[in-house]
Parts: sequence; structure tokens; C-alpha cells
Amino acid sequence: LRIGIFDSGIGGLTVFHAIRRAMPSHDLLYLGDTARIPYGTRSPLTVQRYSFRVASWLYDQGVDALVIACNTATTHALDGLAAAGERVGLPVFGVIEPGVEAALAASRGGGIGVIGTPGTITGAAYQNALRRRRPDLPVYGVACPLFVSLVEEGWLRGEVPRLVAETYLGHLRGKIETLILGCTHYPLLREVIGEVLPGVSLVDSAESTAHALGDRFPAAPTPMGQRGTTRFAVTDNVERFQQVGALFLGEVPSPVSWVDLPAAHAPFEPPGGEP
Amino acid sequence: LRIGIFDSGIGGLTVFHAIRRAMPSHDLLYLGDTARIPYGTRSPLTVQRYSFRVASWLYDQGVDALVIACNTATTHALDGLAAAGERVGLPVFGVIEPGVEAALAASRGGGIGVIGTPGTITGAAYQNALRRRRPDLPVYGVACPLFVSLVEEGWLRGEVPRLVAETYLGHLRGKIETLILGCTHYPLLREVIGEVLPGVSLVDSAESTAHALGDRFPAAPTPMGQRGTTRFAVTDNVERFQQVGALFLGEVPSPVSWVDLPAAHAPFEPPGGEP
Repeated sequence: LRIGIFDSGIGGLTVFHAIRRAMPSHDLLYLGDTARIPYGTRSPLTVQRYSFRVASWLYDQGVDALVIACNTATTHALDGLAAAGERVGLPVFGVIEPGVEAALAASRGGGIGVIGTPGTITGAAYQNALRRRRPDLPVYGVACPLFVSLVEEGWLRGEVPRLVAETYLGHLRGKIETLILGCTHYPLLREVIGEVLPGVSLVDSAESTAHALGDRFPAAPTPMGQRGTTRFAVTDNVERFQQVGALFLGEVPSPVSWVDLPAAHAPFEPPGGEP
Repeated sequence: LRIGIFDSGIGGLTVFHAIRRAMPSHDLLYLGDTARIPYGTRSPLTVQRYSFRVASWLYDQGVDALVIACNTATTHALDGLAAAGERVGLPVFGVIEPGVEAALAASRGGGIGVIGTPGTITGAAYQNALRRRRPDLPVYGVACPLFVSLVEEGWLRGEVPRLVAETYLGHLRGKIETLILGCTHYPLLREVIGEVLPGVSLVDSAESTAHALGDRFPAAPTPMGQRGTTRFAVTDNVERFQQVGALFLGEVPSPVSWVDLPAAHAPFEPPGGEP
């Protein structure tokens, strides 16, 4: 099975990493749309257009499943991509539904927090999904845009990240029992987030998504220890992807190639209009 | 006179603001290429391609002068844009040379620091220009990527920005007498930067660029109090531009229109190849 995974840049590598661990025998192809990063502050229509372009490229590569390893793209483009994928039998996965499932499974009736980029929090896909299923639970959404910059700078521990986390999240202390890390970068800040919110369960959407994928595609019996291939592609600077990507994977992603995305095409026709 | 000013997004509004103050009778047209922001972490070739596209659009609008209000774009694209502009008699200004001039004019023989995005600092256009003119002065370049996120989040004062500034700049204390704010966002953090580096002269490239432009185009005599028009355009989310832009201008930028940039075209033919 060949699985295509995409993100606006580097963060989706946490999802890639979780899928690799959960399904080591499958071939994985990762596309980071680094020429158009960040999706998180862009308008919904722009994010949809970009996502359809990326999906068109992955479709051309012959993938058997498509994973949107980006919360903002899942928020704005999952419905459209899933509908298009269905026409050609290509299943499309997002990171939000699995994160919601995991949070509800862990729930003991207390509040649930969701943190993410401004696009994810304003789009409110997590909050709406939680409220639809459990209207009795208080839900708090908080945009934490500086977290991405901290992670990409490699500032994962110490005074600055702790103070930034306190500023964003201190007011949630005592109000929530579960916090969904609704941005693929955030698992790298798990330690300082845990310090600011002691006793709160942190739900990592990357792990939840890998489990959802594993449920759908149980590992076929393979010769002992046979591992699938991995391959990476980016739309901008290869060096920066490898340098920052190593923070996410624990090793330098390789091989990485540069690709110039084609225009979006069938079955992934892009939406029109102004953002 | 109609002056076209462009940046990857919002930061160039500090340059717009300085030009408006220095040359109130001229018409100003600002383009923020927010669909492709940030330029600061992209490869030189990608920044060149984007800049040529923006320049092509401004050229179509009939501007009489072009200001690259972005340090990264000046680093990578000024030479190419200036050469292309010369073929049609369109003068092109960057923000780097004016900043270098101002720093050297203020110099009393001590060290000079330059701070900017990773692209600006790695590209080393400031450092090279300083060293070419004054090889005897020690020059220190420091990339401060988190500063942009702090400004766009509106965190301009207090503990977090102070601590971030200390982390990036504390080691320069006692080594420099002048610091060039080599990113259009940074003037908004002038206060905390000054706290971390007391007694250091801060050079704002936006101000220096406005002066350079004023020298080249002295104000024509105009009827008392007649002010030029101002107009803004962005390639993504208008609302976000207005919201964050108000931090830079002291008022909400208006009117703002959304534009879909054309392909780059003569005289601004884009460079080819991979980034």
C-alpha cells in the first residue's frame, strides 16, 4: 500500500512519524508544500486551492490513500477532497476526527481544550465536532500562533516556551481535563504544555490519525522485518526542510526532492472565486 | 508621482508609513503579497520569482517608482529588479543601502549589529555592504525569526518579548554601538530591543529608505495641504491585513482590495530553474 501524506510544511512529519511506527510495512510519500507555508493564517478558499493542488500531485504519484496531515487543511479542505477522492475510490483522511475521537474516549465529563493555529481555531472544526457529539461538555478553543515559531526555532524547553505557554494556556488551569494538540507542531512542546497544565491529558492528533489509518488498513502479512519505502518532497528549500525536519523525526528526512506542483486537475478540481 | 511599494505582507507598512510622512503629496500604492508570505525563510530563487511577479503587477498599475519594502526581497531581488526597471526607466529602491548609509553616518568606530530574518542574515547583503565600505568595523549578523511572530501577535511589550530579545541579543551587549533593524517588523519592538541593548543607536531602515526616496524626488510645489492618495492591495485575506496592519499604521489600512497577481512579464521576466 502506498500512502500519500501532506502538510503545508514540516509539522506533518509528526503524523508521518506516527504512521511509520504504526504501519512500518507500507510505502510512505510525504509532500511538504513549503513554498506556500503557512496555511494557518490564510483564508479558507486559499487553503482549499493549495490543498487541491497538492492532492492532484499525490494522485499522479499513484497513492492508495491520502492523509491530510495538517489541521488547517483538514478544517477547510477535507470535505472537498474526500468527495473528490470518492469519485475515484481514493480514501482521504484528516487529523481532526481521530483527535476528537481520542479526546472523547479519554473524557470523564470535564472540559476539553483545543489549541491550534488561528485558521484551525477560527474554523472551529474541532469545537463543532466535539459539541455535536457531546453538547454537555464545555469546550475551549485557543489559537497559539507563536508555538509554531518556537518549534521551528528549536526552542522546545526553558523559560521562553514556558512563559509563552503560560500566557496562552494559564487561564485554562482547573477548567479542562483534556487538551487536544490541534496543530502538528505542538507535540514537540508537550513537555512545557504539561508543566503549565499539570494533570491534563494531552491528545496528540498525529497518534490518533495513525491509529485510525491502521484500523482501516490492517497490516498485510509481510516477510519478517520487511519495511516499506519512505520518500519526501517539498515545493521550496530542501535544506531547511531537512534541518528543521530532523527535530520532528529524530533523524534527517531523506531522500527529499524538490517538486514544482502542477495545476490542480481531475478529480481534484479547485474551487473558484476570491478568498 | 505614483510610488509602488511592496512587501511579502504587512511589515512593509512601516516603510509605507515613513514615506507617507516624508512625501505626503505623492500617491502611494502598497502591495502585500500575503498569499506567499513569509519570504524570510524561502530560497533566493523563490523570493526572486515572487518579487518579479509583484513588480509586474505594480508596473501594470503605472507606478513611477518601485520600493522593495522587504529586506529579504531586497537581498535577493533588488539587483534583478533594478536592471529590469532600468530598461523602461523605472527606478527601483531597496531598504538595505539606505539602512547601511544611516548606520555608517551614525558610526563612531564601534561595532555594528544587523538583525533580520534568516533569509536576510544568511544572504548577508547588509553585512557585505558594511564590510565593503568599512572593513575595519566589526559586524555581527543575528537572525531573530521569532520577532516577526511576536509583532504579528501584537506582543510588543512585557516579559515574553523582553526575554526573546535577551535570548537573541544579550550577547551583543558591549560589542556594538549601532544596531540595524533589518526587518520591517522590528521597529515595533524598538522599546524592548532598547531595554536589552541600552545606549545602542537603533537604525530603522524604513526611515532611511523614506529619506533616500525624498532626496531623489523632492516634493513638487503643490496647493497647500493637498495630499496624495493611498491604496492597498493584498493577495490573500483582506481582514487579517487590516487587523494586523493597524498595529503598523496606527489606523486601519483602507481601502484594501484583493488581487490575483498575473504571471511575471516584461520587463520583469522571472528567473528560471530550481530553488
